[in-house]
Amino acid sequence: MRKKVTLKQLARELNLSISTVSKSLKNDPEISEKTINRVHELAQFYNYKPNALAVSLKSNRTKTIGILLPEILNHFFAKALNGIEKEASARGYKILTCITNESYDKEVEYMEMLNHSSVDGFIIALSEETQIVNKYDHYEALKREKVPVVMFDRVWDQMDCDKVIVDDAEASRNAIQYLADSGCTNIAVITTIGDLNVAKLRIEGAHQSAEKNGLLLKGLTLKNATHAEEEIYNFLKNTAIDAVLGLDETSAAVTINSCHRLGYKIPEDVSVIGFSDGILSKYSYPKLSSISQHAEDLGAKAVTMLVDHIENTKDSYTPRTEVIKTSLILRDSTN
Amino acid sequence: MRKKVTLKQLARELNLSISTVSKSLKNDPEISEKTINRVHELAQFYNYKPNALAVSLKSNRTKTIGILLPEILNHFFAKALNGIEKEASARGYKILTCITNESYDKEVEYMEMLNHSSVDGFIIALSEETQIVNKYDHYEALKREKVPVVMFDRVWDQMDCDKVIVDDAEASRNAIQYLADSGCTNIAVITTIGDLNVAKLRIEGAHQSAEKNGLLLKGLTLKNATHAEEEIYNFLKNTAIDAVLGLDETSAAVTINSCHRLGYKIPEDVSVIGFSDGILSKYSYPKLSSISQHAEDLGAKAVTMLVDHIENTKDSYTPRTEVIKTSLILRDSTN
Repeated sequence: MRKKVTLKQLARELNLSISTVSKSLKNDPEISEKTINRVHELAQFYNYKPNALAVSLKSNRTKTIGILLPEILNHFFAKALNGIEKEASARGYKILTCITNESYDKEVEYMEMLNHSSVDGFIIALSEETQIVNKYDHYEALKREKVPVVMFDRVWDQMDCDKVIVDDAEASRNAIQYLADSGCTNIAVITTIGDLNVAKLRIEGAHQSAEKNGLLLKGLTLKNATHAEEEIYNFLKNTAIDAVLGLDETSAAVTINSCHRLGYKIPEDVSVIGFSDGILSKYSYPKLSSISQHAEDLGAKAVTMLVDHIENTKDSYTPRTEVIKTSLILRDSTN
Repeated sequence: MRKKVTLKQLARELNLSISTVSKSLKNDPEISEKTINRVHELAQFYNYKPNALAVSLKSNRTKTIGILLPEILNHFFAKALNGIEKEASARGYKILTCITNESYDKEVEYMEMLNHSSVDGFIIALSEETQIVNKYDHYEALKREKVPVVMFDRVWDQMDCDKVIVDDAEASRNAIQYLADSGCTNIAVITTIGDLNVAKLRIEGAHQSAEKNGLLLKGLTLKNATHAEEEIYNFLKNTAIDAVLGLDETSAAVTINSCHRLGYKIPEDVSVIGFSDGILSKYSYPKLSSISQHAEDLGAKAVTMLVDHIENTKDSYTPRTEVIKTSLILRDSTN
């Protein structure tokens, strides 16, 4: 079992008082140079470090940001974390990341732990379960303590804090408009994340744009990717379509593969647009046209807002909401 | 700026001594029920929590594991982290993750920070820079303090700690053997991670197996993926081959796409095997046969070893090295 050396143990081993050891570590001129050297030597040998929290209580800052992410296998959050890490590092902040694994209980537990560790602020994307159970007491507590918080992507609307969001409805509108402009008339919207708010917003935007163009959308909404290959294959086999908007990267990638299996040519027979612009888009064949949410910029923006808040010396602070513009990146899966 | 309420502030506001407040928070029978209630009410209002580190010093355990990962965009580390998170959670441990972004300085800095936060132990995969500069003083310090450490995948051989590694040479041997058995005679080994130790081990294994089968390997070694598409396309265009072993997922995915562009049929003209078995393998067309390093099992194994060490009550502890067996997962890109 791990042993941590304390001031007391150093004092005992050196046959000095705790106070003398403490003063020696601060190079207090009251103490002889010989004693100071003895103390430093032993402290170094044991890698003794003063209690980290005590240091932070003194300056009231830890220059550390706590990050709560719902999951890490999703490339969007991995990219956002990468953006957070780089910007935080550039601003002189360290980051501590906790993965809630989409669990409400873990979100509460990790938030408390990070808060006890005295992080200067939080960057948070909500867990799926928190959105479903709709309980936000843990955020009320942060508010009362005036802990700076930035929520991104998956946010709680009523939280009075900075937010960075993606205009998901607008992104879908643009994609459908592009497909309509390129002559597609039988467009299907496919998703494997039907339970998430972002999917609902994307579907809404797609319908708005379709209506404007006098089109009626077809759709396949799955709640997860478990049976995506079978379901998407059957849907494409049995539905007359000339374009697919995949609301997540998996659905677009599976659409491409299903088209290959069915002998449909991309983009000649079927145009495909996906969301997220992750590695699947870059390395699919043909390469996938995709809506980029600029996850890394989004992460960096969250850091900028949080650090501005942490370092704000005025008494009042007015929260802002930043909307990150998406881009439709055209590759080889569209005309 | 954030305010954290202290015992002292509670005492002042309640017009009580610090000692009385402290005792009240512990429901000490010495204190009147009325006072105890007043203290609890105000403490709750301010969301006062006793100093986390103080709590941990008492029990000498924080039930928290510090994780140092070189990067998070690499799906292998994301999967390993997912495995770590799930197993730690099952064993009642929380995890705090720091991304070193392949930097030696950050590895040192984050290790110190987590160590000061009194994590019970570490799970670490080395940054690329640490392997290049070959400096390991920060690990010597952990050793002296007897902090339990498990290194995985990217390990420092001389560190006297538990290790979980993948038999990379063996994995390559098996892949080349499979290609040779299926009749391939012109095999190329392609990588975009030529600088990493794991790539060197994989190349070594490939050559051993080729030699055994009387084959001479061709090869393309890139240090990163920046110009991978161009380079791999040209290599495949100008080299007579009937099989490719990609030593990372990117090189295998780009090989598949280049074959499409060149009109080579997979697996009829060219068989392809990749490493890592991430999402690119699952969603490529045709689906990629791939060597799985079982990243999630590997992460879970690291947690098991670390918790065994943390909870070991004997005076001595003998470090072990676990080798995770890889599997060749056959899909549609091989005969």
